[in-house]
Amino acid sequence: MVQTDPNCIFCRIVAGTIPCHKVYEDDHVLAFLDIGPLSRGHTLVIPKGHWATLEQVSDEAGAAIGRVLPRLARAVLNATGAKEWNLLQNNGRAAHQVVDHVHFHIIPKIGDTGLGLDWPAGKLAGENAKALLNAMRQQL
Amino acid sequence: MVQTDPNCIFCRIVAGTIPCHKVYEDDHVLAFLDIGPLSRGHTLVIPKGHWATLEQVSDEAGAAIGRVLPRLARAVLNATGAKEWNLLQNNGRAAHQVVDHVHFHIIPKIGDTGLGLDWPAGKLAGENAKALLNAMRQQL
Repeated sequence: MVQTDPNCIFCRIVAGTIPCHKVYEDDHVLAFLDIGPLSRGHTLVIPKGHWATLEQVSDEAGAAIGRVLPRLARAVLNATGAKEWNLLQNNGRAAHQVVDHVHFHIIPKIGDTGLGLDWPAGKLAGENAKALLNAMRQQL
Repeated sequence: MVQTDPNCIFCRIVAGTIPCHKVYEDDHVLAFLDIGPLSRGHTLVIPKGHWATLEQVSDEAGAAIGRVLPRLARAVLNATGAKEWNLLQNNGRAAHQVVDHVHFHIIPKIGDTGLGLDWPAGKLAGENAKALLNAMRQQL
């Protein structure tokens, strides 16, 4: 049985006690329209189990979401006529997360509507990369 | 055998003919540091097979990526000390895609560094939702 949080709005949507505009459902995954869309077709894809952030999600639930994302994106694009889109998933308030249940945004880019991004890229320096890689590999 | 594009820079990284700061590798997935990071730890996660955009990706490759994303994110967070982060995947020029080989960005939010987002949310109207859902479900 998946873990749920009775105070979580997305867990309530999974349970059916709060309605949603359901797009898709399987054993692990639910997809529904975002009620505050950035563009036509903006869809949320969530694991049925409750995890606040993606780094906590089980391998099995992560795989289940990854498997259906391409199919769900095709449905969004075919239904809206959009050709371009963003997938976004936010973890933490400073990273723009509002509901503390993992959710992936499928956001079509249609004309001026869709996701706006600010991209102040830096530069990866050699010594920095080496220390960082060592630290990351120790965690894997 | 996975499909590759000899002119694709990420396919060349997969083949090993262009170097990268490799973080992780399995049969389906490669992860390496972004050379133009938005923050310390900014990592790219790609399928080894060549697909320009995520809606084209096979179920198998999608599942393989989804399975390792939480683990890779944990490594990034533990190595950098970041607590918050964004997952971003862009499809098409207007959606900020630069390299035409599917790539997921793991972007830590550290102080002022990380991903900047513009979020001009609209409102989902009932009739619009119904027509949209019908169109999307026909595609699934």
